[in-house]
Amino acid sequence: MLHARVKADVLKNVIDATSTLVDEAKFHISADGISLKAVDPAHVAMVELTIRKSAFEKFEADKMEIGIDMDKFKEVLKLAASDDIVDVTYDADNHRLVLKIGNLVRRMSLVDTSGMTDPKVPKLDLPCQVTVAASELERGIRASEAVSDHVALIADKDHFELLAEGDTDTVNLKLDKATLPELKTNERVKSLFSLDYFSNMVKAAKGSEGVHLNLGSDYPVRMEFDIAGGNGHVTYLLAPRIES
Amino acid sequence: MLHARVKADVLKNVIDATSTLVDEAKFHISADGISLKAVDPAHVAMVELTIRKSAFEKFEADKMEIGIDMDKFKEVLKLAASDDIVDVTYDADNHRLVLKIGNLVRRMSLVDTSGMTDPKVPKLDLPCQVTVAASELERGIRASEAVSDHVALIADKDHFELLAEGDTDTVNLKLDKATLPELKTNERVKSLFSLDYFSNMVKAAKGSEGVHLNLGSDYPVRMEFDIAGGNGHVTYLLAPRIES
Amino acid sequence: MLHARVKADVLKNVIDATSTLVDEAKFHISADGISLKAVDPAHVAMVELTIRKSAFEKFEADKMEIGIDMDKFKEVLKLAASDDIVDVTYDADNHRLVLKIGNLVRRMSLVDTSGMTDPKVPKLDLPCQVTVAASELERGIRASEAVSDHVALIADKDHFELLAEGDTDTVNLKLDKATLPELKTNERVKSLFSLDYFSNMVKAAKGSEGVHLNLGSDYPVRMEFDIAGGNGHVTYLLAPRIES
Repeated sequence: MLHARVKADVLKNVIDATSTLVDEAKFHISADGISLKAVDPAHVAMVELTIRKSAFEKFEADKMEIGIDMDKFKEVLKLAASDDIVDVTYDADNHRLVLKIGNLVRRMSLVDTSGMTDPKVPKLDLPCQVTVAASELERGIRASEAVSDHVALIADKDHFELLAEGDTDTVNLKLDKATLPELKTNERVKSLFSLDYFSNMVKAAKGSEGVHLNLGSDYPVRMEFDIAGGNGHVTYLLAPRIES
Repeated sequence: MLHARVKADVLKNVIDATSTLVDEAKFHISADGISLKAVDPAHVAMVELTIRKSAFEKFEADKMEIGIDMDKFKEVLKLAASDDIVDVTYDADNHRLVLKIGNLVRRMSLVDTSGMTDPKVPKLDLPCQVTVAASELERGIRASEAVSDHVALIADKDHFELLAEGDTDTVNLKLDKATLPELKTNERVKSLFSLDYFSNMVKAAKGSEGVHLNLGSDYPVRMEFDIAGGNGHVTYLLAPRIES
Repeated sequence: MLHARVKADVLKNVIDATSTLVDEAKFHISADGISLKAVDPAHVAMVELTIRKSAFEKFEADKMEIGIDMDKFKEVLKLAASDDIVDVTYDADNHRLVLKIGNLVRRMSLVDTSGMTDPKVPKLDLPCQVTVAASELERGIRASEAVSDHVALIADKDHFELLAEGDTDTVNLKLDKATLPELKTNERVKSLFSLDYFSNMVKAAKGSEGVHLNLGSDYPVRMEFDIAGGNGHVTYLLAPRIES
């Protein structure tokens, strides 16, 4: 059983955060809310998402799993304005979601989840913690796209830095500790990442207050941010590229 | 002789309503206004349009027929803002329209109408009358495009319904009599239509107050709406698709 | 040495005015400001641009020349909002410009100027002077694109006229002397120009108060307008097409 009512925006956030990595995903539904773990087909990045019951206008559910086609759900959500309420129920007989937006009823078939396993999220002990405004990261990434296809994230006790180096041109976003909500590290850290993956993750964080990064040297980055006004949370893990 | 002055918006409405079905059309001009009947090349749909003298700031005309290339006229109208006055005269010597927009004079050649016959509009006795907001139909159509290429229009004495059924997914827009400006029928009616044609007709009705539909069972739909602030009127007829 | 601080809008104006004719350009920098002369690869049109020190928030420079890739500079300027300050310095060791926008540092390699010669700007004694609003020219050009690939500029003592003639359709923008800021000519002049070149030049003048044209009969047009709130100036020369 599932019956939820929620602002379209909240569902859009959930789908945007997930669809950057996978085309289909298995959502775990329980009485407390919804959660998801997924790894991208190239096994470079991972997403962990939770959204609590409190993010919904109404939420009643039994424990169950449903598989969703990201593109199809995105198309359906485009029928709703940001503030429109979407009413969601599960039609067990036909294995479909029934989505009501205004006077419109959209019955959407679900994806088979039997082949979908939940990835194990590795425990990582990363020495550096930094919180950056999403808008700063966005500008750094947009500038970097013209010069390289990868980007270094660097931090020491006084600065956080995003660096992209091409053959002749470079981009450098350098933020002083004083301008950052948070910067904690005992050592200088530096890791290199695929710009494409990192860019998609930062786009999903658009509109969130701050993006929290956990960094090491030649280690994955853990990126975290809140969604749904603090009633949901997204964690990405992105593997580093090792400089040759 | 023709000399008319009219807001660009009115002409845009006329061209939009006509160009959904035909690339070229023959307009009948008289002292009372302008009218047109046209059928699409596949003979699936028909449009009947009238626009009265009262829709114009100024209108003086003798009885005549002119053939217009829809795309060309659309391009010219893009040069004008919605509220700009377009001054239209007929240059008989060169068989052109002379269109003045501000300081700009655009002489536009006309299309030969000798091969264009006026279609006969069939008299249809359709048992159901319903008036729906254009915006509701638009949302229903947008949702339907993801699941099917045809759509059923259904009405009984209590509801009007738009239904699109795909292999696994469905769309259903169901409007109660209480929420509709008008719903009159003595029987349950249902007809199936090409989504593509129906969608274009509804787009042409965008901005009109209400779309009036006449329906039967496995019969054509007659769609009507006002344009030019009630000084013009559009009637479409769309043939049904018979369910196999 | 070069150290300048300037609103992004001013640099965008400079690049837009230049990039309509060339992909790369050599800028002359001196203590008084920046200037440029360039001719397009087909030798049909020429641009002369100056921007004075007063257009900058800060400007300190030694005499030097730098070669700039237009598309690359355009991309960098897209990272800044119109009112953002761009800080520009020259890194002589690496032959790069260092552009700072907010916390972002973009090091941009320069183009070799050794093969770029400054074109000689011909002295032309053109009998007609006319000043036209850029918006009027724009509308005339947009209308003309549907009927021809060239456009005639015509003036006599009472009117300025833009005329495009196709096989069946024509466009005519006719402006009375009374509606023009300036119109001076002792004779009727008429020259024909490539619509493509003329259109790009007028687009670069978008937002300038008035476009000053110097015309003759079957002679080049000289088009001039101010940029950067009067602290910069652009002059184009465009060769005529001779009617066959």
